[in-house]
Amino acid sequence: MSLAGTAGTERKTDRLEAFTDAVLAIAITLPVTELEAPRVALGGDLGGAFAALAPGYVAYGLSGVVIGLYWAHSHFSGKIIEKTDHWYNLLTIAFLAAVSVTPFPTRPFVEHAFDPRSGGTAVALYAGLLAAPAIIWLLRWTYAVRRGLLDPRLDADYVRRVTRRYRVTAAVLSLAAVAAATTDWRWVIAVSAIATLTYVFPPHEPAYLPGEAPRDELEEPDERRG
Amino acid sequence: MSLAGTAGTERKTDRLEAFTDAVLAIAITLPVTELEAPRVALGGDLGGAFAALAPGYVAYGLSGVVIGLYWAHSHFSGKIIEKTDHWYNLLTIAFLAAVSVTPFPTRPFVEHAFDPRSGGTAVALYAGLLAAPAIIWLLRWTYAVRRGLLDPRLDADYVRRVTRRYRVTAAVLSLAAVAAATTDWRWVIAVSAIATLTYVFPPHEPAYLPGEAPRDELEEPDERRG
Amino acid sequence: MSLAGTAGTERKTDRLEAFTDAVLAIAITLPVTELEAPRVALGGDLGGAFAALAPGYVAYGLSGVVIGLYWAHSHFSGKIIEKTDHWYNLLTIAFLAAVSVTPFPTRPFVEHAFDPRSGGTAVALYAGLLAAPAIIWLLRWTYAVRRGLLDPRLDADYVRRVTRRYRVTAAVLSLAAVAAATTDWRWVIAVSAIATLTYVFPPHEPAYLPGEAPRDELEEPDERRG
Amino acid sequence: MSLAGTAGTERKTDRLEAFTDAVLAIAITLPVTELEAPRVALGGDLGGAFAALAPGYVAYGLSGVVIGLYWAHSHFSGKIIEKTDHWYNLLTIAFLAAVSVTPFPTRPFVEHAFDPRSGGTAVALYAGLLAAPAIIWLLRWTYAVRRGLLDPRLDADYVRRVTRRYRVTAAVLSLAAVAAATTDWRWVIAVSAIATLTYVFPPHEPAYLPGEAPRDELEEPDERRG
Repeated sequence: MSLAGTAGTERKTDRLEAFTDAVLAIAITLPVTELEAPRVALGGDLGGAFAALAPGYVAYGLSGVVIGLYWAHSHFSGKIIEKTDHWYNLLTIAFLAAVSVTPFPTRPFVEHAFDPRSGGTAVALYAGLLAAPAIIWLLRWTYAVRRGLLDPRLDADYVRRVTRRYRVTAAVLSLAAVAAATTDWRWVIAVSAIATLTYVFPPHEPAYLPGEAPRDELEEPDERRG
Repeated sequence: MSLAGTAGTERKTDRLEAFTDAVLAIAITLPVTELEAPRVALGGDLGGAFAALAPGYVAYGLSGVVIGLYWAHSHFSGKIIEKTDHWYNLLTIAFLAAVSVTPFPTRPFVEHAFDPRSGGTAVALYAGLLAAPAIIWLLRWTYAVRRGLLDPRLDADYVRRVTRRYRVTAAVLSLAAVAAATTDWRWVIAVSAIATLTYVFPPHEPAYLPGEAPRDELEEPDERRG
Repeated sequence: MSLAGTAGTERKTDRLEAFTDAVLAIAITLPVTELEAPRVALGGDLGGAFAALAPGYVAYGLSGVVIGLYWAHSHFSGKIIEKTDHWYNLLTIAFLAAVSVTPFPTRPFVEHAFDPRSGGTAVALYAGLLAAPAIIWLLRWTYAVRRGLLDPRLDADYVRRVTRRYRVTAAVLSLAAVAAATTDWRWVIAVSAIATLTYVFPPHEPAYLPGEAPRDELEEPDERRG
Repeated sequence: MSLAGTAGTERKTDRLEAFTDAVLAIAITLPVTELEAPRVALGGDLGGAFAALAPGYVAYGLSGVVIGLYWAHSHFSGKIIEKTDHWYNLLTIAFLAAVSVTPFPTRPFVEHAFDPRSGGTAVALYAGLLAAPAIIWLLRWTYAVRRGLLDPRLDADYVRRVTRRYRVTAAVLSLAAVAAATTDWRWVIAVSAIATLTYVFPPHEPAYLPGEAPRDELEEPDERRG
């Protein structure tokens, strides 16, 4: 039970990936329940009733983009991370809890973002909630690098480049949240959107040490074990 | 981070299949929460209270059919698709988001489909929401064919036949949505139903290049790797 | 697309099991959302407010027993079923949809079961909803036996014994539902409970053809492939 | 169908782990739906509306900690448990049902814990609900030890140490619940918190019989089978 001793808690990442997939699958699907279909009397204006729910649809789409990108990126991570341990598990839970929360303030954000009085609060809150998982993601990655949980065949320069990218994202989103609360908040929407949407593009191809590249493009890190 | 460069993001499809299964499992089960069981005082008319909820039960059944068929068909796809990459992942997320939304307008559709005034809107909306996942499915399949994500042993003619089938489904459901909004909408229900229900029947048996058929009927595409 | 031609749709059962697990996991957990925690002013009677929700707790427990037993039994099935195909997938979806519905009339059943006026309706409905998955389970099992989806090494007598057991369960639960609607319904509760609770006990040990028993007790059917 | 005869129901733990992961993933994510985002008119006090929901956020965090720790610990268990059987499955379902319930009284607990009149009830209930999964976990572990479901290479002393730890946790949480209902309840919060938070620290490294240690730190128990 020593603080540092994670020996004996390492496992392959398959169960951690399955848990991550399950939580993100639920988090991306639950906002559907916020899309209450309208109840309209027969002969009533069904089209209008659906149109009135438009902010909910935009919010649903936006939530799907954020969680979907995190899923796609964590799918990629599984390719370069070989194993997990106790603290990596706990950091993963914190990360998942932070991502799961992001959909819920999305509707107030969509409704209030362009309102002169409450816009600043709406944007600051939403930017803050976007920053949280990005910060925990960075912490978790840094832990994995230090503890040797990555595929040991990865090139050190490549790992540094990835770390730098995560640092920039976490810093930009954190600063955006602070900026929205203190200065003009309109440009914060643009900055947060850009910081998020860079993850639409595929990540850099992993670089490996000379002579240590995987056998083919589908090899998983734990397959290199005898 | 180049737009086209997905090198290094390919993985076996097992984690993508697990994520797909989880999202569809949630999407097919969540409509149960719309089936609010009646709250009736002791001695009250419990049977009548349940009967009043009938449109909800029809909607639950209909949602289960649509999502269930997509699941069964995506179960089949896993047999002929060998790997995934970054854009295929994102297209999958878009597909899953589109499927997950389909249950929610199902109840208004069932309630209003035969109403003279709001029937056209109800049918057009529902047909449109059925068309969306069919279109994204087609896009995703086309991407997989062009990027070589399929089992390379598949016969080219077979692949073309599958593509044609997906094109017809996407076109029919899209036209049905447009038709319902502009002309008589009653026959649109029949056409959409038929386009959907053809998927109740099993897909064509995959055809392979001469001498390249899988060892037995349970071999997965990635098992052919050394 | 021929009705009978399922060739080319067979796969190992692992993805089907994962989908089954996901749906049952959701179905067993969702009733928790019906357990609304009480909202009581500070200084108010929190204990009493919790006690007033007791029927909900009984319903939650009952739902958990039914779905849990189905999960445990479908966990066992995975040990004697070697593969799935298109129609087996669709029957599985129907089975899962039927099981997922069972929790929702549980609360009205608990509230009304002993009410002289609405008790018959409550018991008939609940027994009917318990009969549905049992009937689909029997259909699915019969299909698997006829199509050769079982582990081919199983002893034919053993398979017949299992079939008989599923037939008895489906028949007893169906008759119970009819009986509750037409005669005295009080004993129906006992019969349904007994028919369900026999599944608390472990299933019979599978019997194999002479000389064909699995290598050890953890071997899965598809491991016998070369 | 004999009470004791679980022969023929043993399977590797992968499907049980997948089911556990799915249920805990849902249980940890569902409380998000309790975090209703505020609905405020344009120009209204959005910040204040969010602040009023603070007890819900604390409750969400607390639920995440409890379920997350159980997940992390059950992830570890998969490393030292080799197989499951029928009764172990049923005990797992009971354990999962007990964990899934813990989030729902969390909000009343947070709201009432420091209220002079209802604080005792709130704390007793919450401590009781924390004790339930700890007790079932202990029962399940004891069953696994007696039935030989553990990795047989584990050192007996190590197993005894683990058993002792689970006994202490279950006893402390049970006594805390009783104490809260009968004496001063304020210190019960501290004791329950400490008993829970010891699981933040990694478990002891498993000890194996001489010469029987796994090949490397990623080997799963079932890999030792020829």
